[in-house]
Amino acid sequence: MNRRKFIRNTGVAAGIGILHPALFADSLMNTGSGTLRVGVIGVGMRGRGLVDILIRRNDVDLVAISDIAQDSIDKTMELIKATGKSNPKVFLGDDLYYKKLLEMKEIDAVIIATPWQWHTPMSIDAMSAGKAVGCEVAGAYSVEECWQVVRANENFKTAFMPLENVCYRRDVMAVLNMHKKGLFGELMHCEGGYQHDLREVKFNNGKQAYGGGVEFGAKGYSEAQWRTQNSVTRNGELYPTHGLGPIATFLDIERGNRLTHLTSMSSKARGLHNYIVEKGGESHPNASVEFALGDIVTTMLRTARGETITLTHDTNLPRPYSLGFRIQGTKGLWMDVNSGIYIEGTSAPHKWDDAKQYYEKYDHPLWKKYAEDAKGAGHGGMDWFVINAFVESVKNEKPTPLDVYDHAVWSSITPLSEKSIVLGSEPVEIPDFSRGRWMNKKNDFGLSDIW
Amino acid sequence: MNRRKFIRNTGVAAGIGILHPALFADSLMNTGSGTLRVGVIGVGMRGRGLVDILIRRNDVDLVAISDIAQDSIDKTMELIKATGKSNPKVFLGDDLYYKKLLEMKEIDAVIIATPWQWHTPMSIDAMSAGKAVGCEVAGAYSVEECWQVVRANENFKTAFMPLENVCYRRDVMAVLNMHKKGLFGELMHCEGGYQHDLREVKFNNGKQAYGGGVEFGAKGYSEAQWRTQNSVTRNGELYPTHGLGPIATFLDIERGNRLTHLTSMSSKARGLHNYIVEKGGESHPNASVEFALGDIVTTMLRTARGETITLTHDTNLPRPYSLGFRIQGTKGLWMDVNSGIYIEGTSAPHKWDDAKQYYEKYDHPLWKKYAEDAKGAGHGGMDWFVINAFVESVKNEKPTPLDVYDHAVWSSITPLSEKSIVLGSEPVEIPDFSRGRWMNKKNDFGLSDIW
Repeated sequence: MNRRKFIRNTGVAAGIGILHPALFADSLMNTGSGTLRVGVIGVGMRGRGLVDILIRRNDVDLVAISDIAQDSIDKTMELIKATGKSNPKVFLGDDLYYKKLLEMKEIDAVIIATPWQWHTPMSIDAMSAGKAVGCEVAGAYSVEECWQVVRANENFKTAFMPLENVCYRRDVMAVLNMHKKGLFGELMHCEGGYQHDLREVKFNNGKQAYGGGVEFGAKGYSEAQWRTQNSVTRNGELYPTHGLGPIATFLDIERGNRLTHLTSMSSKARGLHNYIVEKGGESHPNASVEFALGDIVTTMLRTARGETITLTHDTNLPRPYSLGFRIQGTKGLWMDVNSGIYIEGTSAPHKWDDAKQYYEKYDHPLWKKYAEDAKGAGHGGMDWFVINAFVESVKNEKPTPLDVYDHAVWSSITPLSEKSIVLGSEPVEIPDFSRGRWMNKKNDFGLSDIW
Repeated sequence: MNRRKFIRNTGVAAGIGILHPALFADSLMNTGSGTLRVGVIGVGMRGRGLVDILIRRNDVDLVAISDIAQDSIDKTMELIKATGKSNPKVFLGDDLYYKKLLEMKEIDAVIIATPWQWHTPMSIDAMSAGKAVGCEVAGAYSVEECWQVVRANENFKTAFMPLENVCYRRDVMAVLNMHKKGLFGELMHCEGGYQHDLREVKFNNGKQAYGGGVEFGAKGYSEAQWRTQNSVTRNGELYPTHGLGPIATFLDIERGNRLTHLTSMSSKARGLHNYIVEKGGESHPNASVEFALGDIVTTMLRTARGETITLTHDTNLPRPYSLGFRIQGTKGLWMDVNSGIYIEGTSAPHKWDDAKQYYEKYDHPLWKKYAEDAKGAGHGGMDWFVINAFVESVKNEKPTPLDVYDHAVWSSITPLSEKSIVLGSEPVEIPDFSRGRWMNKKNDFGLSDIW
């Protein structure tokens, strides 16, 4: 299957129709003999987690890495050294030095694992350079930047995949498998969110990644250097995709269904200030920082087909980690906080079943096949699956299972929720980034046991 | 403490200020020698549950009952006969015959346990007749009727208490006790709802209360006779108080805090239609009924103090019963679906504690004192407590722990959520029914071990 054919098929699959030949004249990929040549932009803690998966694969050549920090480069090279693989080319320089990596003709695909504000320009530059893009997740800063990524993708015709790992979480995929078999009936309502006490991520002592101090920004380390400022200046659903991504695969979002509108509401903000005062004292300079981000931000979304979704963003308060999933249909529901499933006619009336028995019985074919390969990979193995999906689909010149429209819709929830909150929870329309193509696209996520 | 003094104190407590003597010239109550003389309007299944509690008390004389159905009267009389107590006067007649009961000078207080649409006119008539009122819960049909009850209460100056039993649920009160001791810190966000598969309540065979057929309205029995029509014609948070009532006691609603606005979103409606087709066949006349009520209705509310609340109404789909409580503050949270509590510094980091140990340790003084008396009473004993609170406070001429402003605010959520849904989830203001008095009122709910 050649590149030209691939693009035409992608176009048909996405309902694009006739393509102008000029649209796919550029960026022909050479995937070599079953090998994908990958560059990674951003090899901080997250990037190294992905590098670790890439270098263990026989079908990937890690040909280049790029970062702005010597420390990150050094740690990545150590990681590679341990595997005995050949050293990648290193691009260490200022913020824009990643462009040098993109000039390498020997690169087929790039993984982007940089701070949120770089996802859009780097993605566009990479697509413009003809590279397939696997981009780490985050909310966007504006709806316009979501459109920019869509336009670039439609223009340059390279693969683009948001690396939403939770779509591949083992229990989530087992429950998706149950849904595909009709066990929940017609879906009505889903819940999810990002409920993760990030106080030790947002603040540290400038030397370690987690805690030990209440510094952030220039005095912080790793994510505290850049992520925390979002909590200072923005109030909204800042990290929607871990909850929404998996739900989108259940509800056929951009595949026969789409998100139409949302409304968001925010509680007051106390958690981050309290943490600074508690750990750093009232006289610490950061004790006077005012945080915009409400401790709990709740967002309700509706779909064209009439399902509802509730997302919760909860990262400033002490709590056990939970993505708070609920998948509910006409025949039953799953909730992950109590690991409970109820299926009418199967479960004892009005009683929760322990979901674990279902996770085993309906373990997804992908997990059955690759659980051994995924062992030890980040986040319980799901990182392996999302990288595998990206590598396999790009390598085989097939559409990626998640694409630029998923990326745009999911990411747009952040600026749209900010807008809704500013407007006192006014409902806000969600753009149709695919301009109608969602109507005829089929949902094949999770139907394959290849990726 | 005489009636006049009681009223003046109530006025002061509620911040009303100077009262015109004419306002409390009527309706002096004779509580006898520590005995409350009670009439019950509506002795269907719910009313009889309350009668059963009333007749076991030594401080209550059940002097009259009223209903429109011979069957309900007969079953109530059997219940009373079994206790050996003297028979109440019976008012059996048409819809308005309850007014005859209200003419009885020998009645101090009435309990109203009739279909939702009668709560407002009966409450107003009862207060106008000088009776203290304990009114069963439901959402209102309009905001105006909430105002009517408030105005009547302010005019006639009798006690008015919404009989929200879940405010007295044992685990809820234990968690309230924890909150009063500061274990959750400053509250940020609460969740609750009414998640109860009511399909066998909404439909039956006209002979039994639960299931056995798919009839409702004139051909139904008990609640199916009147409740189901609300699902045919209304889409909103139809039954807010079991979730919102307890949350209001945590968040000091109408006691230093108030609800400012809400927005609601509804899923499509499938559950009730599917149930009719499944149990009654596609050719059953009710299979052509279109239900307005979305299967899942989610409502977000915000408070003056900046907390957020999410309510879920979920009564048409198969599921285990759950009110879905979550009480979350700066130091920890409780969720009832997983019976989990997390308290920073006490719980193992990032791990849920089993809430049961806390329920025991922080068992509310009221429950410790009265658990034996409540044994066998409806809904796990909590019905006993709500009736006890009403009887004790009225008998002792003290303000009821829940009052007409609670009733108005909680009940108004229904028509306001209907409005929000019609407007595509527009935010809707919640009226300040107490006109500013909430600012200076103290929250003493659950502080007493008397009621």
